[in-house]
Amino acid sequence: MLTFADFQPGQQYDLGRAALSAAAIKAFAAEWDPQPFHLDDEAAAASAFQGLCASGWQTAGLFMRLFVDGLLHRTASMGSPGVDSLRWLAPVRPDQELAARVVVEAVKPSRSRPDRGFVTFRCELADAASGSVVFTMTAPVMIGTGG
Amino acid sequence: MLTFADFQPGQQYDLGRAALSAAAIKAFAAEWDPQPFHLDDEAAAASAFQGLCASGWQTAGLFMRLFVDGLLHRTASMGSPGVDSLRWLAPVRPDQELAARVVVEAVKPSRSRPDRGFVTFRCELADAASGSVVFTMTAPVMIGTGG
Repeated sequence: MLTFADFQPGQQYDLGRAALSAAAIKAFAAEWDPQPFHLDDEAAAASAFQGLCASGWQTAGLFMRLFVDGLLHRTASMGSPGVDSLRWLAPVRPDQELAARVVVEAVKPSRSRPDRGFVTFRCELADAASGSVVFTMTAPVMIGTGG
Repeated sequence: MLTFADFQPGQQYDLGRAALSAAAIKAFAAEWDPQPFHLDDEAAAASAFQGLCASGWQTAGLFMRLFVDGLLHRTASMGSPGVDSLRWLAPVRPDQELAARVVVEAVKPSRSRPDRGFVTFRCELADAASGSVVFTMTAPVMIGTGG
């Protein structure tokens, strides 16, 4: 299990790839973000997005799933207080393969709790074919010291 | 349909209430955020959260659903470039009733596209019983001018 001391600024983790089917995009939107351009092909084609695209919250969820499976599942993660500068840079389309990556931006021991520290990850999803980045955010994660 | 000109700083919209069942919390986590404290009662009880709590991304999704149903569905929304200062201030527990609210923080016409403007919403979810805020973020939304 990776602990706080295992993280240093500049480390990079490639977290694998995933895609969302049109059916998965519509199902998520029906539950969490029922805007026409996430739900319906015709309405999406007529919208500013010019076609169906995933809810930005589903894009964040796709990133999170790859982050957990690719790194956090083997890390003493204690959750996150929040994220900054979350950006949806381009629409995510059905079956578009996305590659996730994080870079360690900073590490900081907790002042009040010696059992943990904060590791700040610069997070991104990029189109796997072109490398064009579609999603970014900065996420501090509390990670146990193991002590 | 509300358009850009209908929004002014200081306007407040109450967006209703919702809660997540334990089953809904586990189902979301299994798909998007499979960390033990979102998935399993015993592992959650032993974690820093001291009990099952919702993925922060599901909390964001719950807010979004109330935002769409309570305001965006009757607004000429054209999506959002991203959010800032997203904060998970307290764990969201099974069946905890949450109330959503947004306040208009700023309005800004688009420089490059006369068909839209940016309305920046200060967003929050609060515990419906105590009023204690559990989730906040700042979200600019592109809204059509109708022109």
